[in-house]
Amino acid sequence: MEKVLKEITPKSSDFSQWYVDVIRKSDLVDYAPMKGFMVMKPYSYRIWEFIQEQMDRRFKETGHQNAYFPLLIPEHLLAQEAEHIEGFSAEVAWVTMGGNEQLPERLAVRPTSETIIGAMYAQWIHSYRDLPVLINQWANVLRWEKSTRPFIRTTEFLWQEGHTVHRTADEALAETLQQLEIYREVIEDYLAVPVIAGVKSAGERFAGAVDTYTLEALMGDGRALQSATSHFLGQHFSKAFDIQFLDEDGELKYGWTSSWGSSTRLIGAVIMVHGDDKGLRLPPKIAPIQVVIVPIGRGAEREAVVAHARELESALSPVCRVKLDARDEFTPGYKFNDWEMRGVPLRVEIGPKDMAKQQVVIARRDTSEKISVPEEQIGVAVTRLLDEVQKELFRQAAAYREAHTFSIVNYQQMEENGYRGFFRGDWCGSEECAAHLKSETGMTIRCLPFNETPVADQCIVCGQTTRYRALFARAY
Amino acid sequence: MEKVLKEITPKSSDFSQWYVDVIRKSDLVDYAPMKGFMVMKPYSYRIWEFIQEQMDRRFKETGHQNAYFPLLIPEHLLAQEAEHIEGFSAEVAWVTMGGNEQLPERLAVRPTSETIIGAMYAQWIHSYRDLPVLINQWANVLRWEKSTRPFIRTTEFLWQEGHTVHRTADEALAETLQQLEIYREVIEDYLAVPVIAGVKSAGERFAGAVDTYTLEALMGDGRALQSATSHFLGQHFSKAFDIQFLDEDGELKYGWTSSWGSSTRLIGAVIMVHGDDKGLRLPPKIAPIQVVIVPIGRGAEREAVVAHARELESALSPVCRVKLDARDEFTPGYKFNDWEMRGVPLRVEIGPKDMAKQQVVIARRDTSEKISVPEEQIGVAVTRLLDEVQKELFRQAAAYREAHTFSIVNYQQMEENGYRGFFRGDWCGSEECAAHLKSETGMTIRCLPFNETPVADQCIVCGQTTRYRALFARAY
Repeated sequence: MEKVLKEITPKSSDFSQWYVDVIRKSDLVDYAPMKGFMVMKPYSYRIWEFIQEQMDRRFKETGHQNAYFPLLIPEHLLAQEAEHIEGFSAEVAWVTMGGNEQLPERLAVRPTSETIIGAMYAQWIHSYRDLPVLINQWANVLRWEKSTRPFIRTTEFLWQEGHTVHRTADEALAETLQQLEIYREVIEDYLAVPVIAGVKSAGERFAGAVDTYTLEALMGDGRALQSATSHFLGQHFSKAFDIQFLDEDGELKYGWTSSWGSSTRLIGAVIMVHGDDKGLRLPPKIAPIQVVIVPIGRGAEREAVVAHARELESALSPVCRVKLDARDEFTPGYKFNDWEMRGVPLRVEIGPKDMAKQQVVIARRDTSEKISVPEEQIGVAVTRLLDEVQKELFRQAAAYREAHTFSIVNYQQMEENGYRGFFRGDWCGSEECAAHLKSETGMTIRCLPFNETPVADQCIVCGQTTRYRALFARAY
Repeated sequence: MEKVLKEITPKSSDFSQWYVDVIRKSDLVDYAPMKGFMVMKPYSYRIWEFIQEQMDRRFKETGHQNAYFPLLIPEHLLAQEAEHIEGFSAEVAWVTMGGNEQLPERLAVRPTSETIIGAMYAQWIHSYRDLPVLINQWANVLRWEKSTRPFIRTTEFLWQEGHTVHRTADEALAETLQQLEIYREVIEDYLAVPVIAGVKSAGERFAGAVDTYTLEALMGDGRALQSATSHFLGQHFSKAFDIQFLDEDGELKYGWTSSWGSSTRLIGAVIMVHGDDKGLRLPPKIAPIQVVIVPIGRGAEREAVVAHARELESALSPVCRVKLDARDEFTPGYKFNDWEMRGVPLRVEIGPKDMAKQQVVIARRDTSEKISVPEEQIGVAVTRLLDEVQKELFRQAAAYREAHTFSIVNYQQMEENGYRGFFRGDWCGSEECAAHLKSETGMTIRCLPFNETPVADQCIVCGQTTRYRALFARAY
């Protein structure tokens, strides 16, 4: 009955295949019978729960409340904001029948909820005293994608979407940026994924936004992943949905709105940033299992070792998420590979010799280092090592990004680096240059990063003098 | 700008209208633009979060893990278990178009997920070592209902659905009953709603179940509400979906499965069990706001009182969920009504006279009692009173149920009590008697309660000798 531990395609030889191998073999997801849909197995859903916990706590601390709006949106509502429907119409799944009857109007399965929420807010908001409205929703959304990849782009995905209304543009913008900062904190401090914050160019904006702010991360193949976005919607949606309030001065005014979202895509970022040829490497803070104990010993010794390992498990369970792998149908070697593939940050090995010496061996998943630790210090050592692994993964990811970030003065320089990595360069601001670049090289403007220093003050495409600094990359 | 506090229809004169008034005016929900859909506003969603927290913790403690399965189910999968599709076919919403194209096969928006989950389990389970599979999902589901009522029966609702696979029938049945007990604990201890546990008669079973176990609660109008159910599915779904495992003895066997669910319907139970003519009465353990502080004072005094109230808020915030209502556009009387309508368990009143005496007045929502408490004891008093309110609400609900539970020997006796309440009686076990009773009186068999004593050993409909004891009621 022993399952065969198949090799994972090496990351360097075929990154896409490596990704697919890793997510299947590490038990994160499975493919559903319908194209484009995935099943989040417990191992990945637990990671999502940790992300949710961190995000949700911060949303609540900043005054937001959760609510729940309908899954289905009538077609006329979805179409009410012109740019919005134009951006989403090709991706919508439609419910046309309910309980054996043809519906009088098609209902969209929400691709995002600005429209249905806008329609409700218009009814809820009357006075400046009703503002700000700070609501978040944890929900599933559907986007009918032609080409899909688990976590990164699937027809259905789980996310949170915040939707707020404010009295002034300044307040709405401050909210937009505050939420971006919450995302940054969770993504960098918990997922150990370094990100670059900035504003999207017009061509890359959310459909209906005045400005879209984004966090861009660099994956292990040198491509960028948009990791979370926060949109300043101005008065576009409040005008489309008539979200008005009577201000203190007695005037009827349109509200200023924001929306912001992050999704299970973040799990894809974790895999693609930290994974290696042995499989996943999970940051301890979001690892469902932080420490696995593997007892080593055969025959008569085995029983004593497993009993002792069980004691270690009890000793460790107050300080970390620990699992004892006492399966007798697998060898220690198989288990080592198995848990390495699943990205468990620390492995505790315990055998008869260790028992005699009252020590254990701890193996780090991030560096492959093995450390002998006296048993009585195991709790302290594990706590310290988990902290170190967390930091080391971030450090490695930041170093990789550093090594793959290039300042360029013309776009031909991208080719020298195989179009892999982040390219910092200047951009004249015209969508023509952006479109030309994309069709020539597949590179897109990821964002105009905050606080960038100039490169050459000349557009990397047309050479025109400019003060815009952009970050370019091929993106997921 | 002062909003008019409209009267709520008295509970005794029109319970249905009372219910609708209460949920709207207490800010729990709003109606969506599509018939049958509701919006859960933050106030009700927070209650759902507390319920989720309690359920989820117990699920995890009993070894379950969360996962996430697709929203859409291909028609052929939904139809694979014959009784199941027959039970649900009339309630399904269908996605027929995706991204501007007609789909080759209709996709059902899940009404429940046995089928898609069964199809996945068939792929995941190979050996007895893979069992048990203990998975839960928090999700939205859709049932195209003709007549809807917020929380109780809506087209879309939020719920959790557990789906497990076991090696033996005994294990699956033990799981089914264990989960029922978890529901009972949360519903009685947190929602303060007393329930009667039992097994459903064949006519009232979940479509595809061998046995459905249920918790039945009595609402304030004498009608029953099925509050949570747990299904022993036998091998129906494992045979339909080919969930087989190689047992230790080398034989290929079908798994034994269970499923169990609870939903936002529970919030409806809270409202209908505890509410009164002034509005909601929320059990402290699930009240988003447990204590509201209302400062009383005009003109010059106001500022000092509000400042003092703010100190009380800080003092109370470590021991309870407290809110200071410092709105200056409303009178204290308005605020009293407002928070009573929203069901806040305790109100702390503080005015200049109280300040002088270094005391506060605490008003209980459950009994309307007012208690003067020295300020220095406010934390202890609030903690004790919240506990008392929790118990008193349960006590009142149990007393109401007691007063509305009748033992009968023939079904004509139901009329004497206006068909309101629980009727304990014997039943011969034939679906003909059940159907006759339903068409004559609207009464249904809620369950065959556990550990019931005999009433008369004769079917209340046909008079035949029997040993089945049933619980009858008109139900939501």
